[in-house]
Amino acid sequence: MNDRGPYAEPVDMLIVNGTVLTMDAYDRVIENGSVAIKDARIVFLGGAHAIDHTHANDVIDARGGIVMPGLINTHTHVPMTIFRGLADDLPLDAWLNQHIFPAEAAFIENQNVAIGTQLACAEMLLSGTTCFCDGYFLEDQVAREVFKSGMRAVLGQGVIDFPAPGVPDPRDNIAAARRFVEMWCNQSALIQPAIFCHSAYTCSAETLRAAKSAARNLGVLFQVHAAETSHEAGMIQSGQGQSPVQHLSRHAILDANTLLVHGVWVDDDDIAIVKDSGAAVSHNPESNMKLGSGIAPLPKYLAAGIPVGLGTDGCASNNDLDLLAEMDMTAKLHKVTLLDPSTADAHTVLKMATIEGARAIGLDSQIGSIEKGKQADLIVIDTQKPHLMPLYDPVSHVVYAARGSDVSDVMVAGKVLVRNRSLTTLDWEDIRERVKALQAEIAAFNNRNRC
Amino acid sequence: MNDRGPYAEPVDMLIVNGTVLTMDAYDRVIENGSVAIKDARIVFLGGAHAIDHTHANDVIDARGGIVMPGLINTHTHVPMTIFRGLADDLPLDAWLNQHIFPAEAAFIENQNVAIGTQLACAEMLLSGTTCFCDGYFLEDQVAREVFKSGMRAVLGQGVIDFPAPGVPDPRDNIAAARRFVEMWCNQSALIQPAIFCHSAYTCSAETLRAAKSAARNLGVLFQVHAAETSHEAGMIQSGQGQSPVQHLSRHAILDANTLLVHGVWVDDDDIAIVKDSGAAVSHNPESNMKLGSGIAPLPKYLAAGIPVGLGTDGCASNNDLDLLAEMDMTAKLHKVTLLDPSTADAHTVLKMATIEGARAIGLDSQIGSIEKGKQADLIVIDTQKPHLMPLYDPVSHVVYAARGSDVSDVMVAGKVLVRNRSLTTLDWEDIRERVKALQAEIAAFNNRNRC
Repeated sequence: MNDRGPYAEPVDMLIVNGTVLTMDAYDRVIENGSVAIKDARIVFLGGAHAIDHTHANDVIDARGGIVMPGLINTHTHVPMTIFRGLADDLPLDAWLNQHIFPAEAAFIENQNVAIGTQLACAEMLLSGTTCFCDGYFLEDQVAREVFKSGMRAVLGQGVIDFPAPGVPDPRDNIAAARRFVEMWCNQSALIQPAIFCHSAYTCSAETLRAAKSAARNLGVLFQVHAAETSHEAGMIQSGQGQSPVQHLSRHAILDANTLLVHGVWVDDDDIAIVKDSGAAVSHNPESNMKLGSGIAPLPKYLAAGIPVGLGTDGCASNNDLDLLAEMDMTAKLHKVTLLDPSTADAHTVLKMATIEGARAIGLDSQIGSIEKGKQADLIVIDTQKPHLMPLYDPVSHVVYAARGSDVSDVMVAGKVLVRNRSLTTLDWEDIRERVKALQAEIAAFNNRNRC
Repeated sequence: MNDRGPYAEPVDMLIVNGTVLTMDAYDRVIENGSVAIKDARIVFLGGAHAIDHTHANDVIDARGGIVMPGLINTHTHVPMTIFRGLADDLPLDAWLNQHIFPAEAAFIENQNVAIGTQLACAEMLLSGTTCFCDGYFLEDQVAREVFKSGMRAVLGQGVIDFPAPGVPDPRDNIAAARRFVEMWCNQSALIQPAIFCHSAYTCSAETLRAAKSAARNLGVLFQVHAAETSHEAGMIQSGQGQSPVQHLSRHAILDANTLLVHGVWVDDDDIAIVKDSGAAVSHNPESNMKLGSGIAPLPKYLAAGIPVGLGTDGCASNNDLDLLAEMDMTAKLHKVTLLDPSTADAHTVLKMATIEGARAIGLDSQIGSIEKGKQADLIVIDTQKPHLMPLYDPVSHVVYAARGSDVSDVMVAGKVLVRNRSLTTLDWEDIRERVKALQAEIAAFNNRNRC
């Protein structure tokens, strides 16, 4: 509100009657707040009386719930939703070599990548994720489906020194990634192409350098798995005489446009290297836990001032894409690791899933907080439920009590993609039937393979 | 099915068209199964063609979802739902002394215990819990509300050597517990009274012995917090020259009717003592994580053959009563602790939340599995959702992907308490309004107290 009375410009959408967690630099929380959206952006926010509600084309009533920035998943492999729960509780070798790799070889082609991506987008939207950072193969197909869904994403075409779906000859891997980036760099404001170089144990130093060089020339994010397991760290140490982070640093892979995924097996020297490079980290606790990989030293990354986002990893190792559950897990895991209940407090973890996640993937000027001028990527959490009452602290509730199913409404760039828990851009009945048909094929294959 | 054709006795209820996880001794899974219920019990189960569906008064169609035993929460303090999220991320001392204890002193009286219990029952039912084991004060009020809800419970009146709600003079604590047990021991088939002796650090050896003696004479379960924090273990070690488990053992507290809650700070000798005594353990990983207490050696308890159930603990340290989330956390926590993805596999964890939980609280002859003759405590999980598709392994889905909100129907002793996600015995609108009013009072008190 100012001297001229309430904001009364005509807008496309108003979200009213919610506790607005802005996640801005001042951590402003607006009780009974309203957010006005026009042309994909947030144009005004304030208390209920600061905006004239009669000038909106559409209104979402948060009914006393929580309005917050959409959640940002900084690492996943969306086509792998088709393998959700295919193989669990197995040693890493058996899981990968007897189940996941054979299933990928048999089923990862464009049509199934499309189905898996649609399924992932449906799941993510219905649990409050508005933006994700993906890395896989046939990423062009992923991009087409994400584009149709209306979600925002950073999509990395995979680079690996083995034959891969869509790249049968690994000598083409950099060129394929470059082609993908060039194709998508101006297609949509919502899709940022990227390069996803699998890891230092599956890519030679030459491949890593060439892929990073391509990403640098094209001005896109470079994602790489790093220091996920002790086995990997030991392998690189024995082959290169260095830790995974040192190895990447020596080959000039680390800079402010690099996202290190996992970063579990690092020491203080590695963390200092990451900090000095400006690189960011994607922390994927549920996947690291389920695969028995280890616990990344999150408090040390944060103390060093390294941008850290949260990631679910792919569905085969989680088994979901639910960032609300991931936040709860993150906060609790690090408390018990340090035997300190004040570690990884709810506010810090919520930042990781919003503004810090945006920073980690280079989108913090556009998304991650509710601020005037930023993209309208917002969600509403319905708190009128037994497990969300009473409500003393909305940040605590988001991290420790809310579930994906509590997200009632989701908006990306001002477009409503979930309204009152219904998907608006995705045809769930159609996706469901196609997933069921594919499930039957994959189950039969996996059972044959097991025998 | 037998020679005489399908089962065709008239029954009260049929649940059809689900994958039935029996959790029986053979771990039978019945695809497209039906379960018939009459007079509170399961009278038949089998494939779709083994039961004549025309002889049922009522039918629940699981629509291809999962039918399984209701979840069993082996440790909670239900009235504490009114403090959900009141204080988080604080050192244990500040959390207890500056927030929880003052709030309990100010607000724990019969009317608020009733509200908190109703809220807890609503939350538990809507997330698939059919039976819980509680320990608190004013437990008579808890019992009255649980009775009205239709849930099954083991309810322990608290014993502690300090003034407590309803027991201002601790010299009356054993007599009060005895009165509670005598009042409730024949009131309802669904409510088993018990004695909840707070801990060895808040109760003298005399109190522990007297409380256990009362429980033994009355033939009821004896619950006790034990070895939750290193501070507690150190205190008892320095005061008694023994570990908490050794101390309880020396005073003859441990037997097959004793439930040790937490059991985090134990060594191999303690585990051998627990095993030899026949006592059971309630494992509460989320609470132990959130309070930074430590990680109980679950794999060692299981290897020793000790019955271990899952518990959420109270809402002030979790912050929910959701056993589906607790299962996911349990499986992942122990994998990463041992760096072994095969630890705490989904099937083992699901048993902890069902039949092993029942065993831990002495109810395994009545509940915990779907078997002919057992009580009809059942839930249906709706799997027609993006995060539960595809479905290769229903056990994996229950542990790693399902959420409380996926529970569509809940039955206790043959009575439907949740139908298609609506509570049938609890008036949610009324509970909600009363929780809101109480929330305002508690928030004002907590804010004053903080200043």
